[in-house]
Amino acid sequence: MKSIAIIGSGAIGGFYGAMLARAGADVRFLMRADLAAVREHGLRVTAPFGEFRIERPTVAATPEELGPVDLVVVAWKTTSNRELVRVLPPLLHEHTLVLTLQNGLGAEEEIAALVGAERTLGGLCFVGINRTGPGVIVNPVEGAVTLGEFGRPVSARLLEIVEWFKKAGVKTAATDQLAEARWKKLVWNVPFNGLTIAAGGITTDRVLADEGLRRLARELMGEVLAGAAALGFTIPESFADYQMQRTPPLGEYKPSSLLDWQAGRELEVESIWGEPVRRAAAAGRALPRMEMLYFLLRALAAQKQARR
Amino acid sequence: MKSIAIIGSGAIGGFYGAMLARAGADVRFLMRADLAAVREHGLRVTAPFGEFRIERPTVAATPEELGPVDLVVVAWKTTSNRELVRVLPPLLHEHTLVLTLQNGLGAEEEIAALVGAERTLGGLCFVGINRTGPGVIVNPVEGAVTLGEFGRPVSARLLEIVEWFKKAGVKTAATDQLAEARWKKLVWNVPFNGLTIAAGGITTDRVLADEGLRRLARELMGEVLAGAAALGFTIPESFADYQMQRTPPLGEYKPSSLLDWQAGRELEVESIWGEPVRRAAAAGRALPRMEMLYFLLRALAAQKQARR
Repeated sequence: MKSIAIIGSGAIGGFYGAMLARAGADVRFLMRADLAAVREHGLRVTAPFGEFRIERPTVAATPEELGPVDLVVVAWKTTSNRELVRVLPPLLHEHTLVLTLQNGLGAEEEIAALVGAERTLGGLCFVGINRTGPGVIVNPVEGAVTLGEFGRPVSARLLEIVEWFKKAGVKTAATDQLAEARWKKLVWNVPFNGLTIAAGGITTDRVLADEGLRRLARELMGEVLAGAAALGFTIPESFADYQMQRTPPLGEYKPSSLLDWQAGRELEVESIWGEPVRRAAAAGRALPRMEMLYFLLRALAAQKQARR
Repeated sequence: MKSIAIIGSGAIGGFYGAMLARAGADVRFLMRADLAAVREHGLRVTAPFGEFRIERPTVAATPEELGPVDLVVVAWKTTSNRELVRVLPPLLHEHTLVLTLQNGLGAEEEIAALVGAERTLGGLCFVGINRTGPGVIVNPVEGAVTLGEFGRPVSARLLEIVEWFKKAGVKTAATDQLAEARWKKLVWNVPFNGLTIAAGGITTDRVLADEGLRRLARELMGEVLAGAAALGFTIPESFADYQMQRTPPLGEYKPSSLLDWQAGRELEVESIWGEPVRRAAAAGRALPRMEMLYFLLRALAAQKQARR
């Protein structure tokens, strides 16, 4: 394995970075809030297979201290992406690839605009990882990762990265359809990450227990399918039905956006709701409920920001 | 003037009841929360023309104590209407009329089901009256009242009641189109009473200052027009444009539902949002944003109730 920089020390960056480090990769973490705690106590991970610790990970507050690497993994909230213009350049050598594991739509485009589309990769994490404290990561289920090239079919270099993840113990697949996969992930995230917040901070079981919200969740899923279809991605209604069916077993589940909301962190309003609505509209498809959810969440987030 | 029972001692009941009593009418108030305060201190009213007090109004906690009257004015929140089945009978003689001054849709139908459609009248209050404490009513603007028969044209008996209100100093008009007038009032109430709550408890100026919420408010108005049209009421788009234009001068305005919400009172979710959505749906017209607002407000209200 080669050198890897992880941008963001939250749940996703902390967990996959620790897994790769544990497998022997040269992993370097760019951290802000958690830097001091991780320097002192290392990264502590609880995974389904047990607990482990990365005692002395390479961590730094600036990209210059990390230096150029072979792969940059962007794993902070999309709301921080405006800082990539400053953070990415010191991490790049001539052949560095940049992989975003972020939510929603738009991250590959933002990265491609900075480093070139030909260096840009994307991935989706199907997990429920939580950062329970500085440098403390808890992952209750095995989950899976899907990686793809940005706008291109699977390549040898992508398969090599898939192998790194697999060797690190992460269930990982390659996809030729990264853009479609992002829309598929939105089918669940748009309604449940949104309604749990807009309905007052409730868990997914309570969304399902409310007849109106449950219907609204399914209608929002229908709008995600319609938006995807307008962009040429055919996702069957049965996929949305399955997303509804898989939710009750999650119990009193808090989607990542609700956790962000309750912890006072910025919401990924644009990547999860705003950008899909805009792309569908540009393709001629209005998504009224999704747009309304976007407007409400954006307003709620703006007020929370203003109250600080 | 004849005898009048006012059901509900909130802003609307307190103000119009006090105005009628001040003009010499035999006004009897059915009160719950404010009973003791009003018995001790009377009803204190601040109107645009000055302050006045009804020193010893006739008040009671049960309709039996008030006895039959010529006119019953229903002025509590529509959420209390389930109690009308108990409250109305003791107030009725053979020719008693029942006038609802409540918000939204459905109150006339509920009353007609109890006392007969031929006794039922309805009215709309275009005011910003506030009950600032027990028996304390503040009305900053003159406002106006529109009264109509339920499903019938203006009658001699209705005009007589209009005269009572006018003699009491209330700007009052009669309408042949009560049902249409109710939809017209919803054009403003649906978006602004709803979005100020759903967007986190903000005043109308802040709804207008948020680009998304402002657009959403106008789109919701369009849905109210579409719902009205499905039921045969033609309200022009220019009416909605005017409702948008008249809002900025209100400044940091709190619609009545937001005041209810912030004071911990029940929201009139069904009469303002639920019933219009159901009637439009029954007439074949889906109103997606309005239904979504209904579902969200209903869920928010249910949680607030549960937390008590």
